[in-house]
Amino acid sequence: MKKDNNYSVPGFLASAVSAGLKKNGKMDLSLIFSQKKAVGAGVFTTNRVKAAPVLLSQERIKKGLLRAVIANTGCANACTGIQGLNDAIQTADIVAKGLGIHPEETVVASTGVIGSYLPFNLIEKAIPNLIKNLSPDGFRSVAEALMTTDSFPKMSYFKGNVGGCPFHLLGLAKGAGMIMPNMATMLSFLITDIHIDSETLWPIFGSAAECTFNRITVDGETSTNDMVLIMANGVAGNTRLDRSHIKEFERGLTDVMGELAYMIAKDGEGATKVIEIEVHGAATKDDANTAARSVGNSNLVKTAVFGQDPNWGRIMAALGSSGIKMEQDKVQIWIDGIKVVDGGLMTSEQEERKAAEKMKNEQLTITINLNQGRWKDRIITCDLTYDYIRINAGYRT
Amino acid sequence: MKKDNNYSVPGFLASAVSAGLKKNGKMDLSLIFSQKKAVGAGVFTTNRVKAAPVLLSQERIKKGLLRAVIANTGCANACTGIQGLNDAIQTADIVAKGLGIHPEETVVASTGVIGSYLPFNLIEKAIPNLIKNLSPDGFRSVAEALMTTDSFPKMSYFKGNVGGCPFHLLGLAKGAGMIMPNMATMLSFLITDIHIDSETLWPIFGSAAECTFNRITVDGETSTNDMVLIMANGVAGNTRLDRSHIKEFERGLTDVMGELAYMIAKDGEGATKVIEIEVHGAATKDDANTAARSVGNSNLVKTAVFGQDPNWGRIMAALGSSGIKMEQDKVQIWIDGIKVVDGGLMTSEQEERKAAEKMKNEQLTITINLNQGRWKDRIITCDLTYDYIRINAGYRT
Repeated sequence: MKKDNNYSVPGFLASAVSAGLKKNGKMDLSLIFSQKKAVGAGVFTTNRVKAAPVLLSQERIKKGLLRAVIANTGCANACTGIQGLNDAIQTADIVAKGLGIHPEETVVASTGVIGSYLPFNLIEKAIPNLIKNLSPDGFRSVAEALMTTDSFPKMSYFKGNVGGCPFHLLGLAKGAGMIMPNMATMLSFLITDIHIDSETLWPIFGSAAECTFNRITVDGETSTNDMVLIMANGVAGNTRLDRSHIKEFERGLTDVMGELAYMIAKDGEGATKVIEIEVHGAATKDDANTAARSVGNSNLVKTAVFGQDPNWGRIMAALGSSGIKMEQDKVQIWIDGIKVVDGGLMTSEQEERKAAEKMKNEQLTITINLNQGRWKDRIITCDLTYDYIRINAGYRT
Repeated sequence: MKKDNNYSVPGFLASAVSAGLKKNGKMDLSLIFSQKKAVGAGVFTTNRVKAAPVLLSQERIKKGLLRAVIANTGCANACTGIQGLNDAIQTADIVAKGLGIHPEETVVASTGVIGSYLPFNLIEKAIPNLIKNLSPDGFRSVAEALMTTDSFPKMSYFKGNVGGCPFHLLGLAKGAGMIMPNMATMLSFLITDIHIDSETLWPIFGSAAECTFNRITVDGETSTNDMVLIMANGVAGNTRLDRSHIKEFERGLTDVMGELAYMIAKDGEGATKVIEIEVHGAATKDDANTAARSVGNSNLVKTAVFGQDPNWGRIMAALGSSGIKMEQDKVQIWIDGIKVVDGGLMTSEQEERKAAEKMKNEQLTITINLNQGRWKDRIITCDLTYDYIRINAGYRT
């Protein structure tokens, strides 16, 4: 990661330490803190099995205030019952006390193995150092401390302007498996110095998550711990947000969250290629989404992409089994702009060979026109490789 | 395959040849023929994209008569439009003419790559030999000719007795990828000499398929070519079937189709272990099925089994994201009889270690009690391994 990715946002501090949760001595505990009162919003996993930090944070952020996020890797604190919830509450309490803020403005995020209890004593011992190290330049180390099976830290930055006031937006995220955002996915934290009220922030944030994080899939799995949080501390000093200002902020949010989402797909466990699935001409909005997800989650499509094989028959089969309205003989498919299917049939072997050539690239778009209606949608995913198996067959050992 | 698996059924002949559809010179074209008039029934893929042989055979078998099935590997004849349908019809016509039977009693099955046209001249040239070689002992070679990525031929045999008349039932099947029977899956042919009318046969056959082939999944993919066919030629000579006779025949069907289905899961592409997922205590029938499928199709659960890791957190996560009614703190999970989760929490590390030991076996049962109601269901699946990737990233090359 380049030095010039060491972003900051006025009024926010961050730090990360190694608390000993990861066996390899890498950083595993991180803290983000707003020096001023800040509003917050969040989207959380839709999995019915929710980790303790999700249950706690989801409840606290409802009030729209957020000043501190403490995040740990190495333990998901999921399926840990009352003890897990107590551990999360205690963690937040100690942080809040150390920072001199209200516990209700403090939330917790965790990621790692499901079913183990949080090594609370390790966390308790590390918190004083975490607070002592807080700095405006600490965000890069937070991005690193968030990594589990991620192969690179994920940060995205946006500078905008509302009514003459420059504002900043910084996003951090981690991936990289158990990812199919049927809501928020994975962990992502965003901070901004824009001045915005909670009622305005929530819907904007929710729709930005819907069209970014909720449009990626690595393996069709929805985690128990997914959360995306945003804090806005108002330090930018803009007095009000009119419609055009909100548009500008939305653009920034979508940019930053879109870039982070793309990074997560790119860094999907074992991935060698990012695949964008675009569906056009669906009969309904749901059909467009279902079709894109069905293709994007197909193990056979994803292994074919890994093998650089323009095996469009597997795309047809994935569409056909998705339950959407379709007529086989109306389907058109393009691989990176090369039309391989028209009227449900192969265009030509020559076009297939051209498509195979395109599939050597690290980034690939599969475009599907169902010719059933006017709805479209897209999903970003990655290929399925030997390394996905290696990572997930040996995750806990 | 042992010599004593070389089964036969009175009145049925079979043969297989190499027509040159497979590059390696292995057998790829096979024929099953009933010397007498026979009734037939079939279940077919629910994929909206249906191969030409599925369209043809599904239409023909509606009349309840079936005397010949010709099957080819190496080409699915799917997404091939009018030409594909003509090729299938022509194939059936030549077979029917050669056998001196009506084309309407002749069906076609294909499996292989989607999107290529049938090499019809090769098939036409091979049919005379196929007919000439017909023999009561030809079924073993049919089972071999049906293999694509299968690692062993799949046959199952049952001898029963109805009202003093012995009857025989032989089933053949092929697997091994693109398998999630949301109806029939893969190719399977059954023949029996029992005397039964078409109206009695269809519903019995349908329910047997539902609780056998429709309860396996290799990769959550539904093929465009799946079909399961049965022919009954009445040679056993039983005059009528009372309720107890039907029970006996049903038992045979469920035995044979269950064994074939199990073989398909066992021979799932790259599989090293068969996994049975049993769900109890679901709130509804659909919930039981959805829960079993969600766990059985989870890449993370399947890679954990490959890694012999009793990672029950992934089972909890798969249940939680399936959309069923569940309360996290009521879930119980056993791995081969070892209780690893009670009340949604880990029982003990000791039990986990015992479960890890059990996971070294080639066969494994994951039992889940949701404690929400009285419904149960089961799915048979297999682990997800490096070889699945190898097979599917290089399938066409």
